[in-house]
Amino acid sequence: MKPWQVLYSRVLVDRRPWLRLIEQNVQLANGHVIEGYLLAETREYAMTFALTDEGRAPLVRQYKHGVNGPSYDLPAGYLDAGEEPLACAQRELLEETGYVADEWRHLTSAVLDTNRGNACAHLFLARGAHQVAAPRLDDTEDLVTQFLAPAEIVAMVHSGEINSIASVTCVMLAQDALNEEGHHAQP
Amino acid sequence: MKPWQVLYSRVLVDRRPWLRLIEQNVQLANGHVIEGYLLAETREYAMTFALTDEGRAPLVRQYKHGVNGPSYDLPAGYLDAGEEPLACAQRELLEETGYVADEWRHLTSAVLDTNRGNACAHLFLARGAHQVAAPRLDDTEDLVTQFLAPAEIVAMVHSGEINSIASVTCVMLAQDALNEEGHHAQP
Repeated sequence: MKPWQVLYSRVLVDRRPWLRLIEQNVQLANGHVIEGYLLAETREYAMTFALTDEGRAPLVRQYKHGVNGPSYDLPAGYLDAGEEPLACAQRELLEETGYVADEWRHLTSAVLDTNRGNACAHLFLARGAHQVAAPRLDDTEDLVTQFLAPAEIVAMVHSGEINSIASVTCVMLAQDALNEEGHHAQP
Repeated sequence: MKPWQVLYSRVLVDRRPWLRLIEQNVQLANGHVIEGYLLAETREYAMTFALTDEGRAPLVRQYKHGVNGPSYDLPAGYLDAGEEPLACAQRELLEETGYVADEWRHLTSAVLDTNRGNACAHLFLARGAHQVAAPRLDDTEDLVTQFLAPAEIVAMVHSGEINSIASVTCVMLAQDALNEEGHHAQP
């Protein structure tokens, strides 16, 4: 399980921070050579399952150009340059919903495509979320927010209504964490 | 939540089936124009949480060039041209582990990046997996397979040892499905 040896590397497209596309000729440990292997450096983002004091969590629905239609997601957004994942998650929750939260737990940082790069989706669970401001959206955001019970959100994952992979992952990890805390709380 | 209007579109890179990168100038419903928005058509893949008759599931560890090191994943692979997701999942499980399975359940098809395209990871739960052949790996595959109990695999998600987003998602959805079946089975 040795690293591949890079025989040749060049940048095909540089649109940082969104994307840097690199092609490489690489030699595997067994001697096999792959020509034109693609690496894609993409932008990291943070996402939050934010449980309010009323036991609901915000779900945002907005047009996504990649799927040419609306998509459900938990509150999320791209990391600014030098921004820590938790700070990004907190900023995006506040911007998209006007909410802050008392307790934050890092669920995982999941690598989006291990074949092409190490960019992560940083997934968080927040407790004690409460509104402190109105949402503050930028020019590119046109979203509808609803607050649902965790079981309703999980049901939307099961039905396929929520199908964006980071949101599916964050919902399932949050459910698992909440169940685990629930079990521990019971004697 | 109207679709964005495409003002201009051109292909930047065409390396199908791996990647087709497109840039567009788009106009949002509110009139705002984004220049050079990137769409990336990537290759779909299928992945399986395959529970054996002994109550274990295979986990593969292999070098991944994107993260420049080894990574854990459930058995998975890219769809061939025209191949159905289930057929791909079954083929990849057989190739990587030599196993077939009696019962297959589609967990979800999760969109990998709703901002850039509609490519999915197709996630399955298989039951009654049993070995019928030796693994049959191609020249680019150098992997180590181990069979672990579901709880051990979930623990590796919690610890961050398993952090490839599709594997995290498939593990958590499989656990949820197995728990649900377990609850239904008990009076």
